[in-house]
Amino acid sequence: MAADAEFAAPGPLGIIAGSGGLPRRVIESCRAAGREVFVLALEGEADRAAVESVPHAWCRIGAAATALDLLRANAVGELVLAGGVRRPSLAALRPDWQAAKILARIGYRALGDDGLLTAVVKELEREGFRVIGADQLLDEAALPEGPLGRVRPDPDAEADIAHGMRLARAIGALDIGQAVVVQQGFVLGVEAIEGTDGLLRRCASLRRDGPGGVLVKVEKPGQEKRADRPVIGPQTVILAAESGLRGIAAEAGATLVLDRDEVVRLADAAGIFVVGVGSG
Amino acid sequence: MAADAEFAAPGPLGIIAGSGGLPRRVIESCRAAGREVFVLALEGEADRAAVESVPHAWCRIGAAATALDLLRANAVGELVLAGGVRRPSLAALRPDWQAAKILARIGYRALGDDGLLTAVVKELEREGFRVIGADQLLDEAALPEGPLGRVRPDPDAEADIAHGMRLARAIGALDIGQAVVVQQGFVLGVEAIEGTDGLLRRCASLRRDGPGGVLVKVEKPGQEKRADRPVIGPQTVILAAESGLRGIAAEAGATLVLDRDEVVRLADAAGIFVVGVGSG
Repeated sequence: MAADAEFAAPGPLGIIAGSGGLPRRVIESCRAAGREVFVLALEGEADRAAVESVPHAWCRIGAAATALDLLRANAVGELVLAGGVRRPSLAALRPDWQAAKILARIGYRALGDDGLLTAVVKELEREGFRVIGADQLLDEAALPEGPLGRVRPDPDAEADIAHGMRLARAIGALDIGQAVVVQQGFVLGVEAIEGTDGLLRRCASLRRDGPGGVLVKVEKPGQEKRADRPVIGPQTVILAAESGLRGIAAEAGATLVLDRDEVVRLADAAGIFVVGVGSG
Repeated sequence: MAADAEFAAPGPLGIIAGSGGLPRRVIESCRAAGREVFVLALEGEADRAAVESVPHAWCRIGAAATALDLLRANAVGELVLAGGVRRPSLAALRPDWQAAKILARIGYRALGDDGLLTAVVKELEREGFRVIGADQLLDEAALPEGPLGRVRPDPDAEADIAHGMRLARAIGALDIGQAVVVQQGFVLGVEAIEGTDGLLRRCASLRRDGPGGVLVKVEKPGQEKRADRPVIGPQTVILAAESGLRGIAAEAGATLVLDRDEVVRLADAAGIFVVGVGSG
């Protein structure tokens, strides 16, 4: 295929690094594979410690012209978007001419987070970059169907998972968020802009007596897979356990698992389940 | 009508009092009209100060047999449900035989808050009580269409209101909650079990730069109007202003406004709008 022919001599991999643990994982994976990288670290999002040992530059989200210049100056042909990006308000964005042009084309107001990411991927492709998914760079990263560790959901938890899956898909279809927490049939919380970690933290004070709740996380319908796949990692397990949840359920295949061994170790130690649910 | 004939000699009005300011308003309204009341104050929900000056008894939510005995012993024929009730977990509920019988009939797990309230109203009617809405007892309680105070939403805020209305109706249809906060097209938060006050408090730390967000509150589709209508009051305005919102929009007609004069005074002082939106 033509795309594979380009792939043969792509120069360093460009990594547009947002928040969370995913950028570090991609960098480590490239290092292990001997692939050069150039990291464009998004101000206010990327983790300084994760990027400082490799070639990188910091960039505001609104500085699209600078970003494109930096990528080209560093001979980047192939790009991966890794990590979370909170869409800034228009006031905080301070778009440069390039960003303003893009915004004018896609329309700022009509877009949820996901629409914006899809548009960004399209723009990068229009500018001649090849955009790949973080999962293509990571081994064994997708959540398989069934329990990851020793603990399995009981029938009550299964009922909460099924209810949560239905609700999370509806929330995703509205482009609000990817996750809900359900306890005994109740919705303790719905993820919006605060993200999954924020949702888990506030559920600590909302939980009811009796068997704990379940975090359910799904891919938004029509979600741009290369930009914002659902992710669970050690931090998710730690916060879920601290908030008194019984487990985590996420869409098998669609969900990336960061540091699977650590996820399993932490979940087993806390006595909570991590389970991949088929979309069928 | 037959119902009006019964209304002629109903004995004291029974008030099942949950949380928030509504029970106090109903008690004050009855006092002003010279109507006797008997308050069944729900433990963990009702405000002690609001009920202690009138005939009342405290009751667990799970103690349905006790509740029915208390209402009958106090010659209650007509009942109003006022205020919020957080559905307890089954463990905290400790249902007595009557509550267990009701739960067995309606099924515990399948129900959201709204389903449960509808079922409770039906059970009370089955037991021979006449259940009326709090709004039937309060004057000028429904939110009219248009702005309540001096401040009006600008076109940007109107866009957030329209977006919020669409989302809040969808969230309501899922029986998750009644409210969302939208800022510049973004969903800052979705109300679930934490209630509107909790939603507003957490949005304080989630807001973006630039023009503030809007609280949008609607009636759930098919909501039992006598049990859990959307309510806004002085506390809603205070919290909205503290969280940096620009205003509050709620469904005209369906929403109860507690202490309208104080709502208008606080909103005007804070420079935020309170607007009723038609359902058309």
